[in-house]
Amino acid sequence: MKKAVCLLSGGLDSSVALAIAKFEGYEIYALTFFYNQKHSRELESAKKIARYFKVKEHKILNIPLNEIGISALTDRNVEIPTKKNYNEIKRKKEIPPTYVPSRNIIFLSYALAYAETLDADAIFIGVNQIDYSNYPDCRKEFIQKFQEVAKIGTKRGIEGKEIEIKTPLINLKKAEIIRKGFSLKVPFELTWSCYKGKEKACGKCESCVLRLKGFEEVGLEDPLEYEI
Amino acid sequence: MKKAVCLLSGGLDSSVALAIAKFEGYEIYALTFFYNQKHSRELESAKKIARYFKVKEHKILNIPLNEIGISALTDRNVEIPTKKNYNEIKRKKEIPPTYVPSRNIIFLSYALAYAETLDADAIFIGVNQIDYSNYPDCRKEFIQKFQEVAKIGTKRGIEGKEIEIKTPLINLKKAEIIRKGFSLKVPFELTWSCYKGKEKACGKCESCVLRLKGFEEVGLEDPLEYEI
Repeated sequence: MKKAVCLLSGGLDSSVALAIAKFEGYEIYALTFFYNQKHSRELESAKKIARYFKVKEHKILNIPLNEIGISALTDRNVEIPTKKNYNEIKRKKEIPPTYVPSRNIIFLSYALAYAETLDADAIFIGVNQIDYSNYPDCRKEFIQKFQEVAKIGTKRGIEGKEIEIKTPLINLKKAEIIRKGFSLKVPFELTWSCYKGKEKACGKCESCVLRLKGFEEVGLEDPLEYEI
Repeated sequence: MKKAVCLLSGGLDSSVALAIAKFEGYEIYALTFFYNQKHSRELESAKKIARYFKVKEHKILNIPLNEIGISALTDRNVEIPTKKNYNEIKRKKEIPPTYVPSRNIIFLSYALAYAETLDADAIFIGVNQIDYSNYPDCRKEFIQKFQEVAKIGTKRGIEGKEIEIKTPLINLKKAEIIRKGFSLKVPFELTWSCYKGKEKACGKCESCVLRLKGFEEVGLEDPLEYEI
């Protein structure tokens, strides 16, 4: 059975990406990171999603990203912007303060080590460059360059058994991701997207806004409870 | 003052690379990793080298590489090959079992996050593709590809302020690295190279063999104590 490492945050996108890998017949090795994110309750969601899809193995790694990178997602002194601020950030085409330096580069590097050790053929990552936050490490050009690093910088790569980095959601709108997840029976009620990580989702951070807009477009109700 | 992140293992090469960065006038931010390596005593060397060169900051990160990657450097059940086995490995042009999957990709990813947070212009890494162990992530092609990832996958990169990955030792022979270090007053007695990490250097692992050969070629005595 072919193996895949699936980067799983516990959010909607990564859960749908994992479901796609499962549907394509891969044996799943899920990989989740605790990096002192404010919304670390997403880890509980990741565990539930991993169990639901009966993954072969689920590793949760504790990584010291917050010791070297500054972000509104990890720094308790920096506030997560709400919708109003985001509109301003978008207008200026800026990268928002929720950007975590090199996050996906670090995540993919670990996934590559794990895949090489397992002799896995693929890595699935739920990045998306349509309904997203302008993060540079979510775009197709970035993934293509990282694929070249994987080819040239690993034992498997130079032996000609490239580890393919699969991004099944890269060009989908959020509504299309939700439809795809719905068709694959992704339990949305187990996922978590809100950056604030409180008891209920805030409904105001960009992650909530994109998610709610997606559900609205599809005409489905988001099963999560919101503060608003 | 321009800033540089210097990857510092505590070995000979990374210490010389750091000395070069210092000589070039950078303010140094040293970055060292504990990844359950058998030779974790190199961390003590890293601390001493960082102090000796009066770096601005020295971070030692504890990373869970051993939880996902298999290597003779981290697995207590796998033996580190000695000179005899290495000759066989080299003859077959194989990658030795001391290869740690994605190690430099992971190290550089963290260095990138750190550099971006500091607003540093450069990362120094002491990789070398001449007197080395055939590791894919020590070669120039790999560094070039990673440079492209740094350019396209980070905020600084897409804003046109590229973080340069500097590899001053890439094409030097070990003897030339030692000569360079000697001229920059690198305290070789504080460095550590042996993969076994015991009280004295073993003199038989590839890291010791390359180091001893280098010192011999230069006509200097290695100040470390060896078992042989």
